Amino acid sequence: MKAMGPIPAGFRASDDGSLMVGDWRAPDLVAAQGGTPLFAYDRAIVKAQAARFRAAMPPEVALHYAVKANPYAPLVKALAPLVDGFDLASWRELELVREVAGWTLPVSFAGPGKPDFKPDLQAARDLTVNLESEGEFDRFVHGGSDRFAVRVNPPFGLKGSGMKMGGLASQFGVDHDRVPALVRRIVEAGAEWRGLHVYAGSQSLRAEAVIEMQRATVALAGEIAAEVGLTPPEVNLGGGFGIPYFAGDKPLDIGAVSAALTETLSARPVILRDTKFVIELGRWLVGECGVYLTRVIDRKVSRGKTFLVVDGGLHHMLAASGNFGQLLRRNYPVAVAHRFGAEPEEEVSVVGCLCTPLDLLADEVMLPRAEVGDAIAIFCAGAYGLTASPQTFLSQGAAREVLV
Amino acid sequence: MKAMGPIPAGFRASDDGSLMVGDWRAPDLVAAQGGTPLFAYDRAIVKAQAARFRAAMPPEVALHYAVKANPYAPLVKALAPLVDGFDLASWRELELVREVAGWTLPVSFAGPGKPDFKPDLQAARDLTVNLESEGEFDRFVHGGSDRFAVRVNPPFGLKGSGMKMGGLASQFGVDHDRVPALVRRIVEAGAEWRGLHVYAGSQSLRAEAVIEMQRATVALAGEIAAEVGLTPPEVNLGGGFGIPYFAGDKPLDIGAVSAALTETLSARPVILRDTKFVIELGRWLVGECGVYLTRVIDRKVSRGKTFLVVDGGLHHMLAASGNFGQLLRRNYPVAVAHRFGAEPEEEVSVVGCLCTPLDLLADEVMLPRAEVGDAIAIFCAGAYGLTASPQTFLSQGAAREVLV
Repeated sequence: MKAMGPIPAGFRASDDGSLMVGDWRAPDLVAAQGGTPLFAYDRAIVKAQAARFRAAMPPEVALHYAVKANPYAPLVKALAPLVDGFDLASWRELELVREVAGWTLPVSFAGPGKPDFKPDLQAARDLTVNLESEGEFDRFVHGGSDRFAVRVNPPFGLKGSGMKMGGLASQFGVDHDRVPALVRRIVEAGAEWRGLHVYAGSQSLRAEAVIEMQRATVALAGEIAAEVGLTPPEVNLGGGFGIPYFAGDKPLDIGAVSAALTETLSARPVILRDTKFVIELGRWLVGECGVYLTRVIDRKVSRGKTFLVVDGGLHHMLAASGNFGQLLRRNYPVAVAHRFGAEPEEEVSVVGCLCTPLDLLADEVMLPRAEVGDAIAIFCAGAYGLTASPQTFLSQGAAREVLV
Repeated sequence: MKAMGPIPAGFRASDDGSLMVGDWRAPDLVAAQGGTPLFAYDRAIVKAQAARFRAAMPPEVALHYAVKANPYAPLVKALAPLVDGFDLASWRELELVREVAGWTLPVSFAGPGKPDFKPDLQAARDLTVNLESEGEFDRFVHGGSDRFAVRVNPPFGLKGSGMKMGGLASQFGVDHDRVPALVRRIVEAGAEWRGLHVYAGSQSLRAEAVIEMQRATVALAGEIAAEVGLTPPEVNLGGGFGIPYFAGDKPLDIGAVSAALTETLSARPVILRDTKFVIELGRWLVGECGVYLTRVIDRKVSRGKTFLVVDGGLHHMLAASGNFGQLLRRNYPVAVAHRFGAEPEEEVSVVGCLCTPLDLLADEVMLPRAEVGDAIAIFCAGAYGLTASPQTFLSQGAAREVLV
């Protein structure tokens, strides 16, 4: 038997023992949506998560949604009233935000290989290009862009994070010691300097690591501001807030992060007095709201081991197969949808329908018994799920998505 | 500096030093196709590979193409006259083969989570369902299918292969000791028994391992045939033929495999005398024909390290980033397209345009100098490339494909 991750808080069972997603029994939701595979996102969980952020954080800290975590249009639309801005990683994401939310919120665009600036998107009420290099500034300022923040490659990283993105040579951002010169060039070119963006890592569950990163970021922003002699209108502190995926993972202590950030901000350098601070979150806001529902097509026993073969697989949920950035494969939380919370009865491996041994969704986990036709729920599917998966692999079918 | 894999044989430079793909200078091909990112597949390399197989292998061994390796329609069409059948992993692949090649060749369908049988596809002139379990037989025979092979989970695996698929508890096939009973059920149900399918692993570069697997497969087929007292019309020996991807990889010695297989078949049990043997290849046939061409958007230096940021990335070529089944990230072969074979001048890392540190296409390799606008070629992109990648990740653009 191998352990699985914890079921995210916010999911409960109906009177008859079914997993509830929003107001729906999961099997009813599957039927209403026309079947599996289905990604179901629970709006209430997203709202609760945003509310947790607001309740904990100092009011001067704005919350942005990193659209790349999940660009499903109804979810982005549902997030619009809950956040203060959107952080984008492609022009298509900008178009998406315009389509579903209009130009009601500030947007910023980061990423090391941006295609050329699209003047038709200049209309964005408040679009900031986060520059990843000096070369990008030249290209974009000639292309017509006139509002820039500078992404900083900081001399520190988020310790113990799933993805460390600072303290190293990096394709992201401009090395911190070259940032003041680039800021001066922006100002001298007559463009608007919007501030700094520092993203030092993601998926941390350790409050002390996030606290330390935020402290170092505020200090670094202060040093850069002092060197250029200008107050950055905005400092994006990045994200880094993780969610539990695997056995033993504990939720990030958001209260501790908030208390420390309040202290850090109240002691900030005078030159940052009028700076607006932003935290951009993707995974932490939406990761736990999503459930990937897939149906048992076959139950088979091989050399004493029971396999549940399902109609989904890594083509929809690559990360759960352990093939997306993980060094070791570990089990996501999984449940039998109509027997949620029932006692485990047997050890099974849940495998996808693809003809490859990589397509392993749950390895030797204990579950209540599931028969052919039953739905299996894989949790933590709200972020980096469908769009982070090879959807056309083996020319299998698409997955449905629904927000409830 | 880190090593990279060997450039596949079959690629040469034009007089002006450009990589040639078919009769095209790679930069001209990019321009003619409307830009990068572009997957270009060289038809001559596929033909040469198929010819190598035919020249080496005993004539009684048929060659099937495993469509999942690359379902690009013009490529599948080009393969039709070169192979004796298609092996499929989804109904959509069957429809694709019908669209591009008609019903001119036998097709078989394998995979542990097949959706129900589609009677409208019964029209396939020669469709065999490779059964993965007893339960699948019940479902399909009731659904109207009447031609079955049995996929066998053998008691051995392909030693040292990239993906071992035998000798273990498995979602693939029926445990070998239960196969005779299932064959009897097929015959008793009045359906046509088409034979056996044994797939013990993939991506092996060791001739002795492939030889041993084929020997064991023929022996196992003989034992199963003896137990049921019937000659299997066909035995699919699987694939397993690897291609070199990484530094130090040497091509599989197909001559040695062929010599040993000739011997194995000439000494085969009498009950297999009239059996047709099949080898199914995907990666080995098409993997080396493909080049992924992507354009440098930015050249940047961070803490002394040079990055070429390109307009492609892991959303098109996940395997080259090391995130698809590899335990350790190693470099695929890479070249500057218009300076193919030129002396290396500098150490660079080639990174994709996605805003994630996973998007690393070549890590600290030595290349001739490339400027913004130049095309970078990533080789070994003909199999498990575009369709095995998360194409909608970060809502970046699609890649083009072309067969030349």
